[in-house]
Amino acid sequence: MARKTGSHSEITGPRVRDAALKLIAQHGFAAVSMRRIAEEVGVQAGALYNYTRDKQALLFDLMRNHMEELLAARQEAAVSGDPVARLDAFTRFHIHWHLPRGDQVFISYMELRNLTPENFAEIERLRKVYEDELEHILQDGVDAGLFHLDDTKVTTLAIIAMLTGMSTWYRAEGRLSLDRIEGLYVGMVRRLVGI
Amino acid sequence: MARKTGSHSEITGPRVRDAALKLIAQHGFAAVSMRRIAEEVGVQAGALYNYTRDKQALLFDLMRNHMEELLAARQEAAVSGDPVARLDAFTRFHIHWHLPRGDQVFISYMELRNLTPENFAEIERLRKVYEDELEHILQDGVDAGLFHLDDTKVTTLAIIAMLTGMSTWYRAEGRLSLDRIEGLYVGMVRRLVGI
Repeated sequence: MARKTGSHSEITGPRVRDAALKLIAQHGFAAVSMRRIAEEVGVQAGALYNYTRDKQALLFDLMRNHMEELLAARQEAAVSGDPVARLDAFTRFHIHWHLPRGDQVFISYMELRNLTPENFAEIERLRKVYEDELEHILQDGVDAGLFHLDDTKVTTLAIIAMLTGMSTWYRAEGRLSLDRIEGLYVGMVRRLVGI
Repeated sequence: MARKTGSHSEITGPRVRDAALKLIAQHGFAAVSMRRIAEEVGVQAGALYNYTRDKQALLFDLMRNHMEELLAARQEAAVSGDPVARLDAFTRFHIHWHLPRGDQVFISYMELRNLTPENFAEIERLRKVYEDELEHILQDGVDAGLFHLDDTKVTTLAIIAMLTGMSTWYRAEGRLSLDRIEGLYVGMVRRLVGI
């Protein structure tokens, strides 16, 4: 099989990320070598080191990129107005954004153990920014007398776990349409906050 | 460091499982060799093959054992009576059983990808037995006019994801006591089913 042994200019972030994502999701971080990732990109192992310092930097880049894209997309999709509309929008956004990104979601949870403490802290910080967005909606709903719940922080984490968990069982060819499932989750999240 | 190179009789299921569990949770299935597991148990690699056929059989044994222990414990903890009491008992049981078993929970999710199709199907079957227990409670609650929800199956999966997710953020030294958190989850699960 012909393989390009490309120049440095061919080593773009998205290509390296795609290759690393696919291999790490399949085999796990510890079992994937830089050489194997370089092969998947179609470059020599040495060339990969011109793009990234080491495998740790590559994993961190993957996970940070995942969180930064999430936060950017969330900012774009956020609505203003009453807390119920904002909550519904958050539910729909979370499902739509995470569902096609199974590998990233999987790695973001599974490979946290392989980050250095500094890198772990940075990913946690970005996660917290996202969680805080939902917690603010919950707090505004409580303040407006619309939501009835006992602890905004725990409810935030419970909602996110519930929504993200959908990616472990959802199949496009399943019993219910995505539209229907989304509607069910919007209803469940509303119930959770006491609407 | 002295290491026992034990006889076959020393290779007990729990010891092999503990060693495999610890190493796989730390490094991932693909990165852990039978030789490394044998070292952790304190036997020669060859001796390990007298206990288990191969690494696949060992992983399957870990995951099946996890599910069978869960189902046995659940059977013991199950209460009869009205659906609300049964639901509360399920919530408390799920939290109590899963929280101290972080490595098993992690592996049971993360290493599904490494099971053969036959082994995967068996683990899925056992999972479904557990899910069905909760779904029956929900259905009984709906039939009794006590619960108000839209889809017992999706609600079942949502509740389990929400409860299991607790293990990703709970810390014993955190802001809230376990007792308080458990109470919050009992309340959230009730809200989810429209009580």
